[in-house]
Amino acid sequence: MPTLKKTKKKISAAILIIGNEILSGRTQDLNVLFISNWLNINCGISVLEVRIIPDIEKKIIFNILDLSKKFKYVFTTGGIGPTHDDITALSVSKAFITKYDFNKEAYSILHKYYGKENFNDARKKMAKMPIGSKLIYNPSSAAPGFMIKNVLCLPGVPSILKSMMPNLKKFLIKGLFVESITVSLLTVESRIADYLTKLQNKYSKKIDIGSYPFFRLGKVGVSVVLRSTNKKLVKNCKMELLKIMKKNKVKIIYL
Amino acid sequence: MPTLKKTKKKISAAILIIGNEILSGRTQDLNVLFISNWLNINCGISVLEVRIIPDIEKKIIFNILDLSKKFKYVFTTGGIGPTHDDITALSVSKAFITKYDFNKEAYSILHKYYGKENFNDARKKMAKMPIGSKLIYNPSSAAPGFMIKNVLCLPGVPSILKSMMPNLKKFLIKGLFVESITVSLLTVESRIADYLTKLQNKYSKKIDIGSYPFFRLGKVGVSVVLRSTNKKLVKNCKMELLKIMKKNKVKIIYL
Repeated sequence: MPTLKKTKKKISAAILIIGNEILSGRTQDLNVLFISNWLNINCGISVLEVRIIPDIEKKIIFNILDLSKKFKYVFTTGGIGPTHDDITALSVSKAFITKYDFNKEAYSILHKYYGKENFNDARKKMAKMPIGSKLIYNPSSAAPGFMIKNVLCLPGVPSILKSMMPNLKKFLIKGLFVESITVSLLTVESRIADYLTKLQNKYSKKIDIGSYPFFRLGKVGVSVVLRSTNKKLVKNCKMELLKIMKKNKVKIIYL
Repeated sequence: MPTLKKTKKKISAAILIIGNEILSGRTQDLNVLFISNWLNINCGISVLEVRIIPDIEKKIIFNILDLSKKFKYVFTTGGIGPTHDDITALSVSKAFITKYDFNKEAYSILHKYYGKENFNDARKKMAKMPIGSKLIYNPSSAAPGFMIKNVLCLPGVPSILKSMMPNLKKFLIKGLFVESITVSLLTVESRIADYLTKLQNKYSKKIDIGSYPFFRLGKVGVSVVLRSTNKKLVKNCKMELLKIMKKNKVKIIYL
């Protein structure tokens, strides 16, 4: 496994989910959560925007161009299969004004996988992509994803996508890792809001403090999430938070 | 329950998910699926874009203005609670250059719900919103959502959001309902891709034909989804699809 290049900067990414089935409410998206976590844990890359759009060429082109300007990386999911509604590869080619044609290596991988007799036009289509793309190998079902410029195109089926993630590590520069600590409290948000505001003001822009109510086993609680690239500072902030909560008799849940 | 106004046009909407916890991969979003389905079934409104953005004021303002221009309705989720990271109401006020202040009715609802002694500043904050907003009542936890111009602001907690949906019906104009029929086939996409392409070309822009692979009980299959506002046409298209599949010995799964 090749090691990633490292930088001491924060690295941001966007996810572009391409698929009518997600927008219509037919299918629950699971890829945002998986990709975000994977990038956080493995690469120190933070997803800062997600868009879900339909299988419409001009919308794909617009969003590819817009997001690839604004973020270091753009991850797309969906639309790289064999059917007529799979138009991601063609649309990305058009966005970057790059020829859309067979990738020789992808063609060869698919040819071998299906065998000569079963390698029909629909399957051949999955070898077509913007010329100059690098392949993201697919250990599940052969058809590769691809990277062109800062855009990485992945399939929509979660199990296949998951199996491909390790293969895109070599294309990514590692950023500063975000340390995240969760403190769970047996209280309601409106009881601790004032303490959290003061703590957030104290740590200003150095730590992101998030407050999320939860319901578990008939009890209400609040998860306070502290996030920063400064590991030591997050630990200090946690100690301070615990102290404030103890002082004010808010019950801390140790999970 | 007031009846909705009706139109014979398609009505489009966008969803803006506001929340670091979704972007970071901490929390699985469930609201997109629920809202999309609810709007389809109850109002004939189609969600055509979703964006997930962080709790950052300038990002909220930009996206509120951008989406409210492009779509008939914008539904936001998240950021209307009592803590410092709940900045949706203030950001929407700034986007529309509207005063951010107490809504008298919301103040009264929350005052009654919490009682005089427990109505602290954090709870009072939930009564603050853009002046001129209409309230979306909350039968679960009192704190109302609100509508200003074509933007409807809802909470992020799925169970609370779900309980509020019936209360926003009166604010929405009903659009043309989309008829959706799913045909499930025991095959792989690349075997039927050519038939689907021909069928899609025949029905051109009148029907959206989507193809989605699935894995169930160890078997692979394809769900073909036919969607259109023309109910009769969808039925005709379904009959034609079944005929083609039978002729080509593709097994149909009747669920």
